Amino acid sequence: MGVTLGRLAEKLGLELRGDATCVVETVATLQNAGPGALSFLANPHYRPYLSATRASAVILSEDLAGECPAAALISANPYAAYARAAALLNPLPAWSGGVHPSAAVSEGSQVHASAWVGPQCVIESGVTIEEGVFVGPGCVVGAGARIAAGSRLVARVTVCGAARIGRRVTVHPGAVIGSDGFGLAKEGGRWLKVPQLGGVVIGDDVEIGANTTIDRGALDDTVLEDGVKLDNQIQVAHNVHIGAHTAIAGCVGISGSARIGRGCMLAGGVGVVGHLEIADNVVVTGMSMVTKSITQAGVYSSGLPAMPNDEFNRSFARFRRLDDLARRLRRLEKRRKSEE
Amino acid sequence: MGVTLGRLAEKLGLELRGDATCVVETVATLQNAGPGALSFLANPHYRPYLSATRASAVILSEDLAGECPAAALISANPYAAYARAAALLNPLPAWSGGVHPSAAVSEGSQVHASAWVGPQCVIESGVTIEEGVFVGPGCVVGAGARIAAGSRLVARVTVCGAARIGRRVTVHPGAVIGSDGFGLAKEGGRWLKVPQLGGVVIGDDVEIGANTTIDRGALDDTVLEDGVKLDNQIQVAHNVHIGAHTAIAGCVGISGSARIGRGCMLAGGVGVVGHLEIADNVVVTGMSMVTKSITQAGVYSSGLPAMPNDEFNRSFARFRRLDDLARRLRRLEKRRKSEE
Amino acid sequence: MGVTLGRLAEKLGLELRGDATCVVETVATLQNAGPGALSFLANPHYRPYLSATRASAVILSEDLAGECPAAALISANPYAAYARAAALLNPLPAWSGGVHPSAAVSEGSQVHASAWVGPQCVIESGVTIEEGVFVGPGCVVGAGARIAAGSRLVARVTVCGAARIGRRVTVHPGAVIGSDGFGLAKEGGRWLKVPQLGGVVIGDDVEIGANTTIDRGALDDTVLEDGVKLDNQIQVAHNVHIGAHTAIAGCVGISGSARIGRGCMLAGGVGVVGHLEIADNVVVTGMSMVTKSITQAGVYSSGLPAMPNDEFNRSFARFRRLDDLARRLRRLEKRRKSEE
Repeated sequence: MGVTLGRLAEKLGLELRGDATCVVETVATLQNAGPGALSFLANPHYRPYLSATRASAVILSEDLAGECPAAALISANPYAAYARAAALLNPLPAWSGGVHPSAAVSEGSQVHASAWVGPQCVIESGVTIEEGVFVGPGCVVGAGARIAAGSRLVARVTVCGAARIGRRVTVHPGAVIGSDGFGLAKEGGRWLKVPQLGGVVIGDDVEIGANTTIDRGALDDTVLEDGVKLDNQIQVAHNVHIGAHTAIAGCVGISGSARIGRGCMLAGGVGVVGHLEIADNVVVTGMSMVTKSITQAGVYSSGLPAMPNDEFNRSFARFRRLDDLARRLRRLEKRRKSEE
Repeated sequence: MGVTLGRLAEKLGLELRGDATCVVETVATLQNAGPGALSFLANPHYRPYLSATRASAVILSEDLAGECPAAALISANPYAAYARAAALLNPLPAWSGGVHPSAAVSEGSQVHASAWVGPQCVIESGVTIEEGVFVGPGCVVGAGARIAAGSRLVARVTVCGAARIGRRVTVHPGAVIGSDGFGLAKEGGRWLKVPQLGGVVIGDDVEIGANTTIDRGALDDTVLEDGVKLDNQIQVAHNVHIGAHTAIAGCVGISGSARIGRGCMLAGGVGVVGHLEIADNVVVTGMSMVTKSITQAGVYSSGLPAMPNDEFNRSFARFRRLDDLARRLRRLEKRRKSEE
Repeated sequence: MGVTLGRLAEKLGLELRGDATCVVETVATLQNAGPGALSFLANPHYRPYLSATRASAVILSEDLAGECPAAALISANPYAAYARAAALLNPLPAWSGGVHPSAAVSEGSQVHASAWVGPQCVIESGVTIEEGVFVGPGCVVGAGARIAAGSRLVARVTVCGAARIGRRVTVHPGAVIGSDGFGLAKEGGRWLKVPQLGGVVIGDDVEIGANTTIDRGALDDTVLEDGVKLDNQIQVAHNVHIGAHTAIAGCVGISGSARIGRGCMLAGGVGVVGHLEIADNVVVTGMSMVTKSITQAGVYSSGLPAMPNDEFNRSFARFRRLDDLARRLRRLEKRRKSEE
C-alpha cells in the first residue's frame, strides 16, 4: 500500500521538496533503499550514505536537505517523523473481533465484540476485555484482570488476575504481569511465604518487552505510569513505581518498592536496590547498580568497561589493596609535612 | 471472610490485648488500614504510622504494644505472624479436582482425582500428578515428570520430563524446569552438543519465580533442597546444588555444578561461577560475582554502587592505571627509606 | 538399547583396547558408573577417579590408557567422543509426523507430512514447516515464519512471523524469536514506537536456550550464523549479528546492532553495548561489559570478583577518591623532583 509524498507530507506536517505525486511503498535505510522506498537521516553517523542513496525520498533536517539526491521531507525531528511514516506504510495486519474456537473463555468474563481472542488462549472468569483489544495466540488472562481499549497482547502473554492494563498497551511474548512478589518472612531458619495481595496497574501507551516480568504488589499496587517503555527480560518487583515516559532497556532488575521518576532512562543490565527513590530525568548507564536514592537529574554510573584480561587482573589486584595503598601515601605526606 | 481477634490470637498463638470479639476481614499497611483491617509493625521504619493507624488490630512486638491505638496482637516475630494471618484471611480461590476439557492429557499419565489440570494444558505420557496438585492454565508437563502432593503450577509453566517436583511447591508463570543444560564439546572449531541426561530434583516447599529457568543435569541431577526460594528471572544451570532454605533474588545466574550451601541469601543480579562451593549461611550482596569457593559464613560483595558519571569516569581512568600508580608509590617509599 | 564396544569404536573412529564384544548401555561419570556403563575422562581434575571406576569402558586419551581399569576407547578429544557416544546411546524419543488434534493449524500454512505439530500449538497462516521438524507442545509459530528441515522447538516456544529458522536448530522452552526490538523516538517528552520491520535469520545447527529472547531487526535483519549456541535467559536485541560457532552463556545481554565475531565466547552475565564490533575468537569473562569495539582476539574482562564485604567497602571508599589519591601522589613526585 503506497502513498504519495504529497499526502505523506500533509499527514505528517512536513515540508516536501520534490515531486508530490511520487509514490513510496516501503521504508529502508539509506544504504539499502531503492526506488519506491522512503528513508531517513537522523543520526549524523549515516550522513555519508545520503549522497548515494537510491531512495525515492528521505526524511531529514533542513540543513541537510541540500545534500539530498532524492525528494526531501524536512523535519526538525527526522527520527520521530520516520517512526510515524513507517507506521503509516506498515499498518498491523487487519483483524476483526471474535474468539477463536480453540480458546477457553470463561462464561463469567466480558469480551467486547470488537476484541479478538486468539487460538489456545485462556480467559478466566471476571475478566474484562475492552473494545479493540487484541489477545494473540496462547495468552492467559487470569480471573478478574482488566485490559482496556486498544491494547495488544502479542502472543503467549500471562496477565494474572491482579492486573489492570491501560489503553493502547503492547505486551510482547512471554511477558508475565501480576505474578506474586518475592515476599518472605523468616521463622526459625525457614522462609514463610508472605501472601501477595496487591495489584499491578499499567497506564496507557505502555510497552512491555518479551519475557519481562512485573510482580503484583504485596499490599498496595505495583504501578507503571503512562508511556513507560520496558524492553525484554526486565524484572520489576512488587510495589515498584515507575514514572511516566521512563524507558528501561533489557535485563534491568528493579527491587521491591523502588520508586523511579518520570522521563528516566535505565540502560541495559542496570540494577536498582529496593526501597529507594530516583528523581525525574535520571539516566543510569549500563550495568550500574543504584544503591541509594538519587535526588537530582543527571547521569549516574558504576558499570566497569571491559579491558584486556591481564590489564584488568593487575588493576583488580591493586584495587583489593587500595586502602593499604592510600594509607601508605598518607604516611609519606605526613613525613613530608613534618620536614617543612 | 472475617475472623474474630480472639480466634486469630488462638490460631496464631499470639497474646491479644483488646476486644476478642472484634472481627477483622482484610490486611493492610498501617497507613492504609481502616476499620475491619488487620495491620502489622515489623520494620521500625514504619513506627511513626502506628499512633495514627485506623486499623482494628495491629500485630507488633511487646515493647511497642503501649503505643498501639487499636487492639494489639503481641508477637516476637510480627512479620511471620502477619504472614500467617494474611494467609488465613486470604485463602487461595477454591477449586476442585478434574481436568479441563481443553487440556490434552496423555492416556499414559496418572492424574490424581483430587488434582486439577487447567485449560490448554499438556500432560504427556508417564507423568504422575499427585493429590491436590493444581496445574494452572497453559502448563506443559513433559513425559515422565512427577509432581508431588499439594504443589501448584500457577500458569504457563513448563516442567520437562526430567523433573521430579516435591510437595507444596509453587511455580510461577513462565518458569521452565528441566530444560537441557548448556553442554558443548569443541571439535574442529565447531560445537558438538553434549546430551543432557540428568534430572532435576526439587524438594518440598520450594517456590520458583516467574520466567526462572532450572536446567536438568548433564549426567547426575540438578538439586534444589527443601524450602529453597527463587525469585523471578533466575538461571540455574545443570548440576547446580542449592541447599535447604536458601533464598535467591531476581536476575541471579548460577553456573554449572556450583554448590550453594543452606540458609544462604543471594541478592539481585548476583553471578556465581561454575564448579565452586559456597558454605552455609553466606550472604552475597547485589550484582556481585562469586568466582572462588566461599568457605566461611559471612557477607561477600563486589557490586559497585552507582555515582555521578563524571566522578565514576575519573575513578575508572585511575583504576586502569592502578598498577602504575602503586609502583610509583613504592618508588617514593624506597627513595625515602634509602635516605634514612 | 546397548551397543558393543567394537561397534562403538568403529562408529566413532576410536581405537579400542579391550573386549570388542562387551556391551555398554548407558553413560555415567567415573564415580557413578557401574557395569554396562560407558564413562569418559576429559578433565584431568577427575583423573583420581579413573583407577577405581566400575565402568565397563572409558573414553580417554592415549597417555592415560595405561591407568584404565576397564576397556579403553582412545581419543585425542575424549569429551567430543563422549558427546557422540552419549547421543548414540540416548537417542531422542521416537516420534512420527502429524498434527495433534488440539493444535490450531491455519489452512494457509504448509506443514511437511514428516513434521510433528504437538498439542496446543498454534501455526498461523503462511508458515512453512519443513521435513522432520518437531514442534513440541504449546508452541506458537507466527504468520509467515519458516522453520527448516530437522529443527526442534522443544515446548512453549514463540517464533514470530519475522523469523526464518535454519536446519537442525534446537529451541528450548520459553524462548521468543522475532519479537519487536526496542525502537523508540522521542517527541515532546514522550516516546514514539518505531515500527520494527526487519526479520530474524537463524542459521543451521544453532541452539537457543530456555527463555532466551531474540528480537527482529528494525529494518534489516537480526542474524545468528551457523553453529551459534545460546544458553538460557539471553537477550539479543534488534540487528545484532552473531558470527558462526560463537557460544554465549546465560544471562548475557547484547544491545542493538552489535556485531559479534566468529568463534567468540561470552561468559555468563556479560553485557555488550550497541553499535560496536567484536573481532573473531574473542573471549569475554563473566559479568564484564563491552563498551567499545574489540579489534583483536584475546580475553577481555571487567567483572569484579566478590570479596568479604568490609574489605570491599574499604576498597570502594578509596576507589571513589582515586583521582584525588593520584593527584596527591603526583604532587609528592614533583616536590621530590624539584629537590634533585
